[in-house]
Amino acid sequence: MKPYQTTLLSSLLITSLSACQTQVKTSPTTDVVKLQQAALSSQLGYDLVESLTVEVGPRLAGSPKDIIAVNWAMNKLTSLGFDRVYKEPVQVPIWERGEANARIIAPVEQPLVITALGGSIATPSSGIQAQIARFDSLEALQQARPEMVEGKIAFIDQKTERHITGEGYGKSVGGRSKGAVVAAQKGAVAIVIRSIGTDHDRMAHTGVMRYQDGVPQIPAAAMSNPDADLVNALLKRDPNAILELYMSPKNLGFNTSYNVIAEVTGSSKPNEIVLISAHLDSWDEGTGAIDDGAGVAIVTAAAKHIQDLPIKPARTVRVVLYAAEEIGLMGGKAYAKAHKAELPLHYIAAESDFGAGRIYQIDTKVNESAFAAVQKALSPMSFNGVVLGNNQASGGPDVSMLPALGVPVASLRQDGHDYFDYHHTPNDTLDKIDPAALAQNVAAYAQFAYIMANSTTTLTPLIVSSKK
Amino acid sequence: MKPYQTTLLSSLLITSLSACQTQVKTSPTTDVVKLQQAALSSQLGYDLVESLTVEVGPRLAGSPKDIIAVNWAMNKLTSLGFDRVYKEPVQVPIWERGEANARIIAPVEQPLVITALGGSIATPSSGIQAQIARFDSLEALQQARPEMVEGKIAFIDQKTERHITGEGYGKSVGGRSKGAVVAAQKGAVAIVIRSIGTDHDRMAHTGVMRYQDGVPQIPAAAMSNPDADLVNALLKRDPNAILELYMSPKNLGFNTSYNVIAEVTGSSKPNEIVLISAHLDSWDEGTGAIDDGAGVAIVTAAAKHIQDLPIKPARTVRVVLYAAEEIGLMGGKAYAKAHKAELPLHYIAAESDFGAGRIYQIDTKVNESAFAAVQKALSPMSFNGVVLGNNQASGGPDVSMLPALGVPVASLRQDGHDYFDYHHTPNDTLDKIDPAALAQNVAAYAQFAYIMANSTTTLTPLIVSSKK
Repeated sequence: MKPYQTTLLSSLLITSLSACQTQVKTSPTTDVVKLQQAALSSQLGYDLVESLTVEVGPRLAGSPKDIIAVNWAMNKLTSLGFDRVYKEPVQVPIWERGEANARIIAPVEQPLVITALGGSIATPSSGIQAQIARFDSLEALQQARPEMVEGKIAFIDQKTERHITGEGYGKSVGGRSKGAVVAAQKGAVAIVIRSIGTDHDRMAHTGVMRYQDGVPQIPAAAMSNPDADLVNALLKRDPNAILELYMSPKNLGFNTSYNVIAEVTGSSKPNEIVLISAHLDSWDEGTGAIDDGAGVAIVTAAAKHIQDLPIKPARTVRVVLYAAEEIGLMGGKAYAKAHKAELPLHYIAAESDFGAGRIYQIDTKVNESAFAAVQKALSPMSFNGVVLGNNQASGGPDVSMLPALGVPVASLRQDGHDYFDYHHTPNDTLDKIDPAALAQNVAAYAQFAYIMANSTTTLTPLIVSSKK
Repeated sequence: MKPYQTTLLSSLLITSLSACQTQVKTSPTTDVVKLQQAALSSQLGYDLVESLTVEVGPRLAGSPKDIIAVNWAMNKLTSLGFDRVYKEPVQVPIWERGEANARIIAPVEQPLVITALGGSIATPSSGIQAQIARFDSLEALQQARPEMVEGKIAFIDQKTERHITGEGYGKSVGGRSKGAVVAAQKGAVAIVIRSIGTDHDRMAHTGVMRYQDGVPQIPAAAMSNPDADLVNALLKRDPNAILELYMSPKNLGFNTSYNVIAEVTGSSKPNEIVLISAHLDSWDEGTGAIDDGAGVAIVTAAAKHIQDLPIKPARTVRVVLYAAEEIGLMGGKAYAKAHKAELPLHYIAAESDFGAGRIYQIDTKVNESAFAAVQKALSPMSFNGVVLGNNQASGGPDVSMLPALGVPVASLRQDGHDYFDYHHTPNDTLDKIDPAALAQNVAAYAQFAYIMANSTTTLTPLIVSSKK
């Protein structure tokens, strides 16, 4: 799709190959170059995300499709010939979306596009009609006097900023996750947020929200950016505008899902683990292509390229496809619990969960004494366009709890400038993935896993200070 | 939004002003420059489309909102102080969208995003489940043997090409308007088309379709581009994939809508008319911003700038906001019929119905003997970025029948490269309009109308040969 980039990569590859050939023969470094070459010339990553989105599609944790996705993953990983393929149970709540309708009914009638936030309760079957209490941010809602909110529908109207890092999401997502509790504490009858998204599409962005024991549960929804603009324009004309909400989601107990795991057994240190991961579940309105079919494809294809090497790296490369990330990192938490005894053998972990944009940087979270050696080891990744970054990585959502448990992590930073245009919407579909960018990701993960699996630097345990 | 363009226009304006000042004083040409200056520095156009989309919103012909829109237009045109404001009845059918759901139910379950085509009948309440007969185009469906289609859901899978002119729409829209008849003639139980749109959004594009007497009526829908991709991917895996459709639109008789008309009375030839127009109705899923709130705003603001001139042009400038364009040019046809006797006094006509992209060219349909003089007269439009084009204009949908009735027309060509990303979808909202581009349109229509209203070239009647 971007031929100049392919050309650039090819020429870097040739430079790299030449350099390697004059310095070392059949060394791990040569293998790193071969891995890059194999990944960039392979369609495997794209074929995997195509298969997952077409043959399974949306796979909300706890839904029948979630189990179909688990079966898809078990079959796919088995057919790829990994040394081990297995699954581990994860208890997940069942939440069904139902319908979500909204409209302004005064001063004029205007239908709006909304979607329920994940975990929200339903409105009464007759809906809710109330005035709107608009706030610029969660913080503004937190500071509001209760009489401004009581009996009204709280509306957090914060725009999400566009950044390559996706950092705008972090600034605005609090309104989604915590808004219902804060609004209910002040007497709101429901909460609606401007979608946590950078697009101008008339689609609302879903995502998980939370209730809190002791605080009344109120319905929670997101509205599309154009609809939030419309509500603003109407509020300017009439601050007493009336919003009508109807939503029928259901919380239906619990189900068993699974973390699906595949391994390339290490040749000399098979008990030590380099963990590369993604999450198998998705939201229900798209087909889960960028979130996180891309990640599933990237780490699976990366491991397959290592599986296909004539000589396996020293440590085991473990692919974990986590269950139920979207609704609260449940697969990640279950893994950390189930593998507690084995965590000291986890050399390093990373998760791909930010779409399929090119990786431009690798950050780590390793002991400071090891950082320079790790950076040196990872330096061949630069031939794939990945620069060496900092030592403040979180590793990704499902591995974010591992540093506190002594496991080093890495974050392979992707270009996410358009990720929040599509994330958690019906627009999360296969066409949003650039096959060339996906292949670059596969190459980067393959290189990362291979290098770490052969590294001679001592990384574990990670000593994390109790202060941030 | 694009400061460099504003700067460019300003410098051209100064050049133009200097040129005019040395050549003629207080001439019509000076007024053309002043009109451009007034339009480019005014927010009126944007305020009008903001008002229409916020205070009225979707306004499907025949619906209650259609009448709200007519009242909005009457009030707005009156408040702007035009010399005359009036309305003329147009009979329009009433069609309600209802629900539209679709999913693949075999070999796997995949929900799809569809929308009913305007005018479609409903499916049975139990829906339709059938195999899919896929075709690359309407022509391929026309050539298919009936046994390939009988009992199946016909699927026309033609992609719409992106062009500045919008010409891709013309190549693919036949499947939407005529597909149901052709499919039914071969025994199809329903028809679904790939949306006539250039986007990759998971939104389907509606638009009018037709039945034909003597041919069975079958339900007709469009699916989004990502969903059409998905269906293709599934058909490659299983040509016997089953599609389930459920749609509940209703045809509910007829209602009275109105063409809403405003005039700037001509100073010396008040009975002669320069007609600039747009359509007031819209589809029902967006707020009708680019189609055709923009056009309503452009021609209304253009006429208002002429109304505000100290000396009015010779001919009357008539603004017509047509009823029911979307469902079959009903306002345009009603106007031509009601004004039949007056058509010889129509000097020239144009309609703005292609969004708010910048106007880059003006084409005309005038007698060849007058073409050079008309081009010379229109040449000051170049200072607003509008080049002189050809003499093969259609004038726009609602005036397209006028050339055959002896009325010259003009087409002010807009940059439509992204028009079919949003057209006829929920995404047709205010945020898609660039205020600076809209103002450039207002300036161009004001100049066009003013120049034509003062032109001394004889244009009428237009002699159109019976051969094309």
